Amino acid sequence: MNVINIAVMGYGTVGSGVVEVIRTNGARINQRIGEGLNIKYVLDLRDFPGDPVQEKIVHDFETIINDEEIKIVVEVMGGIEPAYTFVKRSLQAGKSVATSNKALVAKHGAELLSIAKEQNINFLFEASVGGGIPIIRPLNSSLTADEIEEITGILNGTTNYMLTKMFYEGADYETVLKEAQANGYAERNPEADVEGYDACRKIAILSSLISGQQVDFEDIYCEGITAITVEDMKYAKAMGTTIKLLASSKRHGNRLYAIVAPCMLYPEHPLYNVNGVFNSIFVHGNVLGDAMFYGSGAGKLPTASAVVADVVDAAKHLNRNIMTMWDQEKLKLEDKAAAKRRFFIRMKGDADKMMSELKYSFGEIEIIHAEGLEGEFGFVTPVMMEGDYDTRAKGYKEQILHMIRIEDQTE
Amino acid sequence: MNVINIAVMGYGTVGSGVVEVIRTNGARINQRIGEGLNIKYVLDLRDFPGDPVQEKIVHDFETIINDEEIKIVVEVMGGIEPAYTFVKRSLQAGKSVATSNKALVAKHGAELLSIAKEQNINFLFEASVGGGIPIIRPLNSSLTADEIEEITGILNGTTNYMLTKMFYEGADYETVLKEAQANGYAERNPEADVEGYDACRKIAILSSLISGQQVDFEDIYCEGITAITVEDMKYAKAMGTTIKLLASSKRHGNRLYAIVAPCMLYPEHPLYNVNGVFNSIFVHGNVLGDAMFYGSGAGKLPTASAVVADVVDAAKHLNRNIMTMWDQEKLKLEDKAAAKRRFFIRMKGDADKMMSELKYSFGEIEIIHAEGLEGEFGFVTPVMMEGDYDTRAKGYKEQILHMIRIEDQTE
Repeated sequence: MNVINIAVMGYGTVGSGVVEVIRTNGARINQRIGEGLNIKYVLDLRDFPGDPVQEKIVHDFETIINDEEIKIVVEVMGGIEPAYTFVKRSLQAGKSVATSNKALVAKHGAELLSIAKEQNINFLFEASVGGGIPIIRPLNSSLTADEIEEITGILNGTTNYMLTKMFYEGADYETVLKEAQANGYAERNPEADVEGYDACRKIAILSSLISGQQVDFEDIYCEGITAITVEDMKYAKAMGTTIKLLASSKRHGNRLYAIVAPCMLYPEHPLYNVNGVFNSIFVHGNVLGDAMFYGSGAGKLPTASAVVADVVDAAKHLNRNIMTMWDQEKLKLEDKAAAKRRFFIRMKGDADKMMSELKYSFGEIEIIHAEGLEGEFGFVTPVMMEGDYDTRAKGYKEQILHMIRIEDQTE
Repeated sequence: MNVINIAVMGYGTVGSGVVEVIRTNGARINQRIGEGLNIKYVLDLRDFPGDPVQEKIVHDFETIINDEEIKIVVEVMGGIEPAYTFVKRSLQAGKSVATSNKALVAKHGAELLSIAKEQNINFLFEASVGGGIPIIRPLNSSLTADEIEEITGILNGTTNYMLTKMFYEGADYETVLKEAQANGYAERNPEADVEGYDACRKIAILSSLISGQQVDFEDIYCEGITAITVEDMKYAKAMGTTIKLLASSKRHGNRLYAIVAPCMLYPEHPLYNVNGVFNSIFVHGNVLGDAMFYGSGAGKLPTASAVVADVVDAAKHLNRNIMTMWDQEKLKLEDKAAAKRRFFIRMKGDADKMMSELKYSFGEIEIIHAEGLEGEFGFVTPVMMEGDYDTRAKGYKEQILHMIRIEDQTE
């Protein structure tokens, strides 16, 4: 059996997972490739005395780049630099790359894909979105008969864990955040998760893939879950909905409308029942109809499973480019103000007294009362453009306590 | 742009869907392939005067097999013959084949895959399981880092539609069957669906794929939904469960335990919420953990979407075999009697009076009472081997009204 030598850059959580997966399932993996996978180097600044990986540890990237035997490089360091430089140089040297690094893919994906194509090798990043859930490869090679009209996902396990706790246990934001931090689901600085930035990078990657053009995450409206309260959840329950942090990209003609925001979902929505740290991605194709992919969105082994699946694919296609590219030219996103939906609003005051002015402003609204909440009420607007909502909401600046978008299933 | 000529065999529901999908999304599809897809022939016994496809209609398979320009053949006729002969001859002539024909794949998959491999072309069958849901390709090329330990699916939309109606509306079997037939979800002869044969062929295909050896559907224990009653559903509700027709394959060491049977599921099970005509497939990998794939398991366009995705894949790999094979040598399945689970039993008589003898026979049972049912009661056994259950149940032949298996999520 021929041997394919690979290097793993980064021996943190995912990196050690990659080594473990190849150790555990190596025989089966080699059978699938038809050749033997060998981890020749593990790049890390640290040493790991006593760990069987110690003998493979190198501290200098030049060792990897200069070794012609290395055909595939796994990048699981995270962050933009030095990951970007190392990945780019690897591709330019004719080595395929598998990465779990969403920041890198969101920012430099177009360029790295194009280098891989020129070199007739591969830049693969299944693990960058949805952890262990196969979504990048299905979009690239399974949903190829379709025009993808919508991708909406629960793409961040930390916030989904927190919102699930808040919904089912009535706990408040600060309490569940502390709990999530205590059991390792949230980082000490939880900003990237709770502000929605992590989900935003992921939906940017998916949007680039389905549109074929670069979508910058900075251009996507992004709202996290930090403002979600115990009271919001009470209204959600009264309405028969739940609140989820959705990252969504919908096709409007040639444009995409992309947004990350907490949304109310009814039980009919396929993502309603996705609870705890799980992720799920809903896809609507113009001929396929609805499909959904569900699984562990993070975690050492699920993420490593996706990275190693990329390594297998790279090994089976050593001199053949298989990924769909996207152009570096930026896609013009649809203005958030032009998107239509219903809105839920929590308002100070008395519903009966305000009814006629609210109807005048918002149209046929539906009043919602939640148990035990006094001096406030909720209401749901008819479908309207977000820009029109903004105009109307301005007149009630002092009274509006919170607005949460409603995600009705289209069609 | 080069042209790749294809032939579609069969202009029924799926065949006309394939033509429609290529007509609708042709530009996008050609962009993905990098070449132009052209339907040169449509094979059917009938003529279709007035239909734009009429000019492509041929009645003789020899026209297709003798035309060297035809690189890919789509087989959507269904049934074993003449599909088997046509597909085999096509592959032997160096033409890749995409099929939606589960009967053909379940029976001759191993042989057809091996011919495709010899010829360095492809035999693809994404649409044969789960309609539009990508599952064959993800198993073949995404879940490659894993040892797949379980696949459990709701693989038949007709029976899931019927069970959903029975559960939510309290309707009886005969009524929902007539309704399903009236709106086209069930055929006039519903045997293949309601007896579980359709689901059984599909789980046989998935079992062959994950084990790498032929699994004959005739070897799989198969129980349909014809015995499910209004009373069963009442007990299911009392227990907080629902009843689904599950097709399942689980790894026990080197063996697989495969079964098709109606099972009770608790809300925690990922398949609990799959309702109506939708299909869903749950997969557990030893490193991935749990994943689930959900979508339209049948229907003209979703199925055609999967067939055309196979055509795209075949077109991108005209001279390169990409599918994992399975051996023609039959896999030894685990004896059904050795599988362990809990059982729900409906019994004639009085629970209090029978309690001590039932405890003696079955161990620590849990009694279930359903509203409005007199002269009978239900109980749940502890986990036991199915063979041991059979032995114990023999002594209560006269009293047992029905037994339904309970699908607890393992781990």
